Amino acid sequence: MSGFGFALLARDGAARRGRMTTPHGTVETPAFMPVGTAATVKAMRPADVAATGAEIVLANTYHLMLRPGAGRIAALGGLHRFMGWSRAILTDSGGYQVMSLAKLRAISEDGVTFRSHLDGSEHHLTPERAVEIQALLGADIAMALDECGAFPASEDEARRAMELSARWAERAKAAFRCEGALFGIAQGGIFPALRQEAAARLREIGFDGYAVGGLAVGEGQERMFAVLDATVPVLPEAAPRYLMGVGKPADIIGAVMRGIDMFDCVLPTRSGRTAQAFSRRGTINLRNARHAGDPRPLDEACRCTACRNHSRAYLHHLVRADEILGAMLLTEHNLRYYQELVAGLRAAIERGALEDHAGAALTLIEAGDIPPL
Amino acid sequence: MSGFGFALLARDGAARRGRMTTPHGTVETPAFMPVGTAATVKAMRPADVAATGAEIVLANTYHLMLRPGAGRIAALGGLHRFMGWSRAILTDSGGYQVMSLAKLRAISEDGVTFRSHLDGSEHHLTPERAVEIQALLGADIAMALDECGAFPASEDEARRAMELSARWAERAKAAFRCEGALFGIAQGGIFPALRQEAAARLREIGFDGYAVGGLAVGEGQERMFAVLDATVPVLPEAAPRYLMGVGKPADIIGAVMRGIDMFDCVLPTRSGRTAQAFSRRGTINLRNARHAGDPRPLDEACRCTACRNHSRAYLHHLVRADEILGAMLLTEHNLRYYQELVAGLRAAIERGALEDHAGAALTLIEAGDIPPL
Repeated sequence: MSGFGFALLARDGAARRGRMTTPHGTVETPAFMPVGTAATVKAMRPADVAATGAEIVLANTYHLMLRPGAGRIAALGGLHRFMGWSRAILTDSGGYQVMSLAKLRAISEDGVTFRSHLDGSEHHLTPERAVEIQALLGADIAMALDECGAFPASEDEARRAMELSARWAERAKAAFRCEGALFGIAQGGIFPALRQEAAARLREIGFDGYAVGGLAVGEGQERMFAVLDATVPVLPEAAPRYLMGVGKPADIIGAVMRGIDMFDCVLPTRSGRTAQAFSRRGTINLRNARHAGDPRPLDEACRCTACRNHSRAYLHHLVRADEILGAMLLTEHNLRYYQELVAGLRAAIERGALEDHAGAALTLIEAGDIPPL
Repeated sequence: MSGFGFALLARDGAARRGRMTTPHGTVETPAFMPVGTAATVKAMRPADVAATGAEIVLANTYHLMLRPGAGRIAALGGLHRFMGWSRAILTDSGGYQVMSLAKLRAISEDGVTFRSHLDGSEHHLTPERAVEIQALLGADIAMALDECGAFPASEDEARRAMELSARWAERAKAAFRCEGALFGIAQGGIFPALRQEAAARLREIGFDGYAVGGLAVGEGQERMFAVLDATVPVLPEAAPRYLMGVGKPADIIGAVMRGIDMFDCVLPTRSGRTAQAFSRRGTINLRNARHAGDPRPLDEACRCTACRNHSRAYLHHLVRADEILGAMLLTEHNLRYYQELVAGLRAAIERGALEDHAGAALTLIEAGDIPPL
């Protein structure tokens, strides 16, 4: 656990302004982590990811263990060197992707056996092996293997997955002996009591940080926030809290107000490849013909490459022509938007003005895009 | 013709070291022009294209007249502003793409009628309209509409296309009244006498520059060089000479030695999207498994993003995983290679050492890539 720390710098209601220390630099929280699934934040050069303000990215253990393989990355000097990213990296445990991508899964007490979605090869993942793989990758923050379960799940099924995840978390903790941090993941579906039990068990085991997993899978924002309201108070004050796979800007704002410190989501990057831009005024679909002759930038207040140099008309043209530059520019814009979103939340917490800030931000998001010329 | 000029700075045998002056800056020659077909050099941000050393890019009139339309680009302030490129732009005439991409072509003395490959809409392109479209785009260098003919073509067929192109060139010249330059295009297939006749007719009409078109279409390097040997001496000394759509590094070296000043080709950009990298030691296929564990850069002497920050193993991984970053990094590398290729030729001409320089470069290209570790 050496090399990792977390300091609380300010509070505003349940929200927290913190700073993580990792073997690869500090991370101001609340933080958003761009997703770099296959050792690349899609359509972005590493230096350009850093330029958006990101201090940490997420990489997917499942994808990297299959291609190019954790051993190969270790032999090449670790994931930071491999992908040319010198700031912090969090690797997920692989559990979620095994459930969502792999074929012929078989879950036992020992772990999970599955076939690769790439070539059908068989793999076995245990809590110990997941920790070992993440150590080979050189993660600054590793995640304990969990079982997400299906959604929707009955309370019995959610309890089974939560308890298995808790037992796996204990084994992960016992196996972990790295620089950097290990986070446990609380499961429990949409059932507040199960979530509280999960959080209490993880707290008893003791982790460097605590994640809330298995949300944003279709339960809706209201249920997600209800789970957070129940779970977060059970988590230790002194450790960072990570809401996995979330989310839309309004989800992040609401979760920060409920005491969450870290987020990851494919939305800004995936949307960048499907012509969706995030802005202070909600999402903008650049494929829409209304932009075809619009000389204005996407967002006149944004300092990204697209907003400094290009019109909506040009972005529309790139999207219509399926040009890679369209994905590049919109991804950069979206990642910058997400970094500025959390930077704004951090500043508001410091000022003790989060509620007003959040209210104004949500109002603007709901107001929607400026009308066409 | 105001706003355009060409100065010869040095000679070495038939080769020339020159400088073009355009409404958007100077262009050192011999020059390589990256291809920005649809108002974007694929997978590159404009600033990154400039950083490779490119002082001029080519854009395709055919593509832009169909989407987003020349009128739209003019209304948005012209092509430079539209694509965010402040250096020089050469637009081709559209003739070549009408022949290679469009459907249901009908050629008459007046011009060519064709259907868009995008939506089947009918369009008519004449020498006058091609000049008008390029003026709407705001090209620094416009090209007279030509007819390439098919390859292989009989001498009769090549003569017909050459003579039509010469008559169209005369009409283009009469219609042209822009800042910037108009170049004529010599056709004539693989027949040296036809090529000489074409060059003489263009010279008589008088252009700011002279292009050799319809080569590198399958005739082979030997025939291409034979055409250049016959054609170039007929062209005026005081104007730039442009070999269209060429080519491989060895083609460019040989053509510069024969007095060509300008080149464009999709090879560096297209190859960047198909895992092919150019290097001083020939081409390298990054998809090949030999690179999977190789920690060395593509080319240790190159200063591009890929060669400064990434291993061959990482590039191989990106290519295998179909990651956009692979196309981005290899395109940048290849464009930088092409710019350094022509920069090396320019320096060698200045030193009066082109023959030695070219021989050494060709030997290294033929030697091939360094062996795997």
